[in-house]
Amino acid sequence: SRLRDHGVEIGVLKPGTLNAITDVPGTQVGHFTLVKGDSIRTGVTAILPHNGNLFQEKVPAAIYIGNGFGKLAGYTQVKELGNIETPIVLTNTLSVPTGVNALIGYTLNHPKNENVRSVNAVVGETNDGYLNDIRGRHIKEEHVLSAISAASTGPVQEGNVGAGTGTVCFGFKGGIGTSSRVIPEKAGGYTVGVLVQSNFGGVLKISGVDVGKKLGHYSDSFKYSPDGSCMIVVMTDAPLDSRNLERLAKRAMLGLSRTGGIASNGSGDYVITVSTAEECRIPYTSDNPIQTMPTLRNSAVTPLFLAVIEATEEAILNSLFAAKTTTGRNGHTINALPKEEVLQMLKEAGKISD
Amino acid sequence: SRLRDHGVEIGVLKPGTLNAITDVPGTQVGHFTLVKGDSIRTGVTAILPHNGNLFQEKVPAAIYIGNGFGKLAGYTQVKELGNIETPIVLTNTLSVPTGVNALIGYTLNHPKNENVRSVNAVVGETNDGYLNDIRGRHIKEEHVLSAISAASTGPVQEGNVGAGTGTVCFGFKGGIGTSSRVIPEKAGGYTVGVLVQSNFGGVLKISGVDVGKKLGHYSDSFKYSPDGSCMIVVMTDAPLDSRNLERLAKRAMLGLSRTGGIASNGSGDYVITVSTAEECRIPYTSDNPIQTMPTLRNSAVTPLFLAVIEATEEAILNSLFAAKTTTGRNGHTINALPKEEVLQMLKEAGKISD
Amino acid sequence: SRLRDHGVEIGVLKPGTLNAITDVPGTQVGHFTLVKGDSIRTGVTAILPHNGNLFQEKVPAAIYIGNGFGKLAGYTQVKELGNIETPIVLTNTLSVPTGVNALIGYTLNHPKNENVRSVNAVVGETNDGYLNDIRGRHIKEEHVLSAISAASTGPVQEGNVGAGTGTVCFGFKGGIGTSSRVIPEKAGGYTVGVLVQSNFGGVLKISGVDVGKKLGHYSDSFKYSPDGSCMIVVMTDAPLDSRNLERLAKRAMLGLSRTGGIASNGSGDYVITVSTAEECRIPYTSDNPIQTMPTLRNSAVTPLFLAVIEATEEAILNSLFAAKTTTGRNGHTINALPKEEVLQMLKEAGKISD
Amino acid sequence: SRLRDHGVEIGVLKPGTLNAITDVPGTQVGHFTLVKGDSIRTGVTAILPHNGNLFQEKVPAAIYIGNGFGKLAGYTQVKELGNIETPIVLTNTLSVPTGVNALIGYTLNHPKNENVRSVNAVVGETNDGYLNDIRGRHIKEEHVLSAISAASTGPVQEGNVGAGTGTVCFGFKGGIGTSSRVIPEKAGGYTVGVLVQSNFGGVLKISGVDVGKKLGHYSDSFKYSPDGSCMIVVMTDAPLDSRNLERLAKRAMLGLSRTGGIASNGSGDYVITVSTAEECRIPYTSDNPIQTMPTLRNSAVTPLFLAVIEATEEAILNSLFAAKTTTGRNGHTINALPKEEVLQMLKEAGKISD
Repeated sequence: SRLRDHGVEIGVLKPGTLNAITDVPGTQVGHFTLVKGDSIRTGVTAILPHNGNLFQEKVPAAIYIGNGFGKLAGYTQVKELGNIETPIVLTNTLSVPTGVNALIGYTLNHPKNENVRSVNAVVGETNDGYLNDIRGRHIKEEHVLSAISAASTGPVQEGNVGAGTGTVCFGFKGGIGTSSRVIPEKAGGYTVGVLVQSNFGGVLKISGVDVGKKLGHYSDSFKYSPDGSCMIVVMTDAPLDSRNLERLAKRAMLGLSRTGGIASNGSGDYVITVSTAEECRIPYTSDNPIQTMPTLRNSAVTPLFLAVIEATEEAILNSLFAAKTTTGRNGHTINALPKEEVLQMLKEAGKISD
Repeated sequence: SRLRDHGVEIGVLKPGTLNAITDVPGTQVGHFTLVKGDSIRTGVTAILPHNGNLFQEKVPAAIYIGNGFGKLAGYTQVKELGNIETPIVLTNTLSVPTGVNALIGYTLNHPKNENVRSVNAVVGETNDGYLNDIRGRHIKEEHVLSAISAASTGPVQEGNVGAGTGTVCFGFKGGIGTSSRVIPEKAGGYTVGVLVQSNFGGVLKISGVDVGKKLGHYSDSFKYSPDGSCMIVVMTDAPLDSRNLERLAKRAMLGLSRTGGIASNGSGDYVITVSTAEECRIPYTSDNPIQTMPTLRNSAVTPLFLAVIEATEEAILNSLFAAKTTTGRNGHTINALPKEEVLQMLKEAGKISD
Repeated sequence: SRLRDHGVEIGVLKPGTLNAITDVPGTQVGHFTLVKGDSIRTGVTAILPHNGNLFQEKVPAAIYIGNGFGKLAGYTQVKELGNIETPIVLTNTLSVPTGVNALIGYTLNHPKNENVRSVNAVVGETNDGYLNDIRGRHIKEEHVLSAISAASTGPVQEGNVGAGTGTVCFGFKGGIGTSSRVIPEKAGGYTVGVLVQSNFGGVLKISGVDVGKKLGHYSDSFKYSPDGSCMIVVMTDAPLDSRNLERLAKRAMLGLSRTGGIASNGSGDYVITVSTAEECRIPYTSDNPIQTMPTLRNSAVTPLFLAVIEATEEAILNSLFAAKTTTGRNGHTINALPKEEVLQMLKEAGKISD
Repeated sequence: SRLRDHGVEIGVLKPGTLNAITDVPGTQVGHFTLVKGDSIRTGVTAILPHNGNLFQEKVPAAIYIGNGFGKLAGYTQVKELGNIETPIVLTNTLSVPTGVNALIGYTLNHPKNENVRSVNAVVGETNDGYLNDIRGRHIKEEHVLSAISAASTGPVQEGNVGAGTGTVCFGFKGGIGTSSRVIPEKAGGYTVGVLVQSNFGGVLKISGVDVGKKLGHYSDSFKYSPDGSCMIVVMTDAPLDSRNLERLAKRAMLGLSRTGGIASNGSGDYVITVSTAEECRIPYTSDNPIQTMPTLRNSAVTPLFLAVIEATEEAILNSLFAAKTTTGRNGHTINALPKEEVLQMLKEAGKISD
């Protein structure tokens, strides 16, 4: 059961039908989970903005760097050109190049891409090296391709799955989480969907309740591992250009903050935002040097900002609610969030509506 | 009485003696408040990192743009050179050039600055045009100089004072607020102090309690005024270079988020950070082309990040707790936060320690 | 006579009719020159992208920071929102706030702007303090308004005029210069116009000829004055969004380089780019939250990059060719470029076509 | 023979002994060249700032994006933390992930790195797909390791070698080029060394002579291939922090401009700058949270800016002078620069000193 199933509402906006990134039409998510022996606890998650040829029909996009202690691939071209041309892949830190290689192969081999000789693969990561034998670099290209093949619309599996298999969040087991918001019809009725790979620290808050503080469950030295991180992927059907997508991305970090995240020195926090609006697709080739694109005016984007903040907060909390206690490398064990205890705290704080 | 006097603790770190930006040694704050007739409700606040000649002894500094719908002066040179060379002045949007003119005059006329022909004045602003006749541009250079002259160490006046005289925050009367945090001795024992000029919107949270939602006190259209904003000034005695000061500045926005701020399209949110460490002063002229400066390593900055997040959150809340109901331009009235009602909510949520 | 009149061609593209920024339809330029007594040598130059109400009909724009040791006003809002809403004003360093005040007044007093309470004035500067009593701050608001009122289409006065009255470039008298390029019809046939306020150093090259080196006319210590700078204003009728305008702005610095500029530590080099295309105007208010704007695809912008590089190089050289020997503050004299000697060098290098 | 051997001097500063990046003490360069059959024309070049354990003794660094249509790995962490922790590797576009994988392996397997679980590999690229079967991804990890193993101080091979094996520059055969400058003793006597992988377009100028224009050898449609690029690696023994290294990096693009480069839409132009000064090394671990580092003051960096501009211009020209006519994929042939004809032009322009 997810946080909202317990009667806890984050924010003032309503989620979409699935309360998932896949509420944004066309968005697909696929996981590949690799759990082997005592020490392999890792995986891959792929997010596709549409089911066509992404290289031939690029999507407007932006990436915001919350904190850049990370190895995300693809940043500079997205910044320069304002678009994404591959599926978005999440995995562990040392498997980023494998992810890139897989996406290059995927793109080169895609029908109609026979003459493509340049591909900007977008691959994000967090470091699962506490539970996973990350130095072993167990992710292979076929695993990445499996995650892409598995991508589908519909409900998204959360917790210890895909790229979230071995992650740790606020000292508890983290993982994949997702959530969405629909803004009011009079503001456009658009949907904003978020998916996170949670692997960071701070002092956990759940719906404003100081869970980390009450449990005494945070580092008193504040010397967080340099490898914590949070990857945040945001899709919206609102027609946005890359400038406003970058502004939207920046707000996702405000949602992370509300869970108690602090973007510590060692954190690699990146937010990738994409507009899936069909009228905003950017064809690779065109006879017309001019593209006429409808986009939201600056003055219309504020409701989307609120939506991404709320959905990011809830996606992170969902990752914690879904993740299960895990033992991995060197016998390290990370416990799941003590949900019963937490729900009791939330109840006492009046956060649970009946 | 301030928030903390009611038994509400924000975060896990301890504040300094005054719980104010002036807990950072050497920091001085001065206000000039201009309330005249029915429609003038504005002012100036000045913050000085040290009481020497700031032009001759510059301070390492950074400015982070939370959202750039604002008119702050001085950004590009601070970004390029990594230092600040004037007092920091806050005022209303249309009085920024008056603030700059005053700081230029202040600097040119300062003893030993007889040959100075270039000054990078740092002036921030928020728009108090709902309560104040901002188009009248009533702030004069002498008002700015008065604020600077009035600057002193010690307790800082909050609420409807100086640059906070006419501001509005979450639909309630905002203003000046301040707070501080001291990080543990083993992490360096440094102090981080924050002062805010609060004038922004969102859905108010106080210590995680959904005050704005419970009161139904937020815009259901999410069409926030394009002129809302928050200026955040941060001082620390930790020895930091401009790169890590920029990272510190970025985290202050995470503190703003925890009060329910969303950095709406029309918000001009800027964070100015300064290291007041004496060993980090940057002399205007020097016989030595090399400066040997002790600064914190990347791996030591995380506790400061937590400190600035907590102090920013509390400074904003302090501004709301101190501000008083105000009537101004066109008979517009903005009410103070209903403190009794809010404290009751906090009590019910278990946020008030006895 | 201008450089091109002597048979010197910069680059491979053709200039527009006037070889001036005013070749871009609708663009207007106005100067106010202030020469008084022995030591006042300064002024104001205003550039208007169209002759309507700029606040109500904003233009897509970007500002690129070549080197940020400068006091340009308006940067952060242009970066965030992607547009400019006032005339662009150039003046001396310490008169920037006067320029801002004048533009605020100009905007507030413009018909239909009765309810405007926030204005992002764009004012650039270079430091003319060697020839001008800059500390005297002799520019007044009415001077700025005079420059705006004087703005017209047609030929642009160059050299010791307006904001170029007291500037110094490569140790010779600099000033205002302008040039333009028209790209081939098959690439769109657009015009790019450039206007510069030249006040910087390096080792002068003219059409690739090492003039500064041959004359031995450059600082052997390379300790350039910290107040040198170059303001570059670029207009184009090509339909560009702010992202591609920022890319265009970045290339203007490549043109500056070709004159021997090095963007020294003390240089405040800023490039302001604007699309004057009517179909790209951004109305202040609109009933429609969506704007449908035709803009050039990424793949179509390269010819504009070449155009801005060539026009910037030639505009700087034009400023040197037009400027006259000037004596100012403290009896300082700066000589004009020795044109006869330079033309002889160009001839010997085969740079002059008959 | 190199450009300077013909009596052509670029700029006013003197080169170091080798006129190569290896004039910077400790800097090592290694190549691996892969030429096979009709269509494999590619390779790897590695640059090492020192011969110790780079992960344990990181170097201050910055990366500047001249134009971001490229796939360089490592940008965001260098930007955030201000250092580089691996050798710098250059190769072809689609082999970047192979380069990253090799650098991860290299680092994990380095003695004393047994517990390292996060590595930020810096790998740059240009697209050699016209002459090379880039889709075949023929570079293997062992090739990258070979280039690193081959790294040495001393003269650097230029032209069709390593990462320059298959590149094209201004329509002629490009490749690897290098150059250096020593600034005057009174300015510190530091050395700046540059190495380029040239693969870009524009209208070629050599020492200011319009070679491309005279030869009519440039695209009249200005529709440059989207895959052109220039990688520029800069080393200096000047003690610089990452902020001033980023400023230095920015100036390298001014040097590229002087060869006629225009940073076209499809160009991936990146400049990587490193300070090799021993007193600026950043230990991975330290008992002291404070590092005391001597660095150049802002006011002392200008001569380095001039140095990097001159060395970049000459390095690019050296790459053209060294490269040989090459036939590769699909029978494509790219000619070497017609050196005799070019030297004649330079002579006529008075550019050759006897």
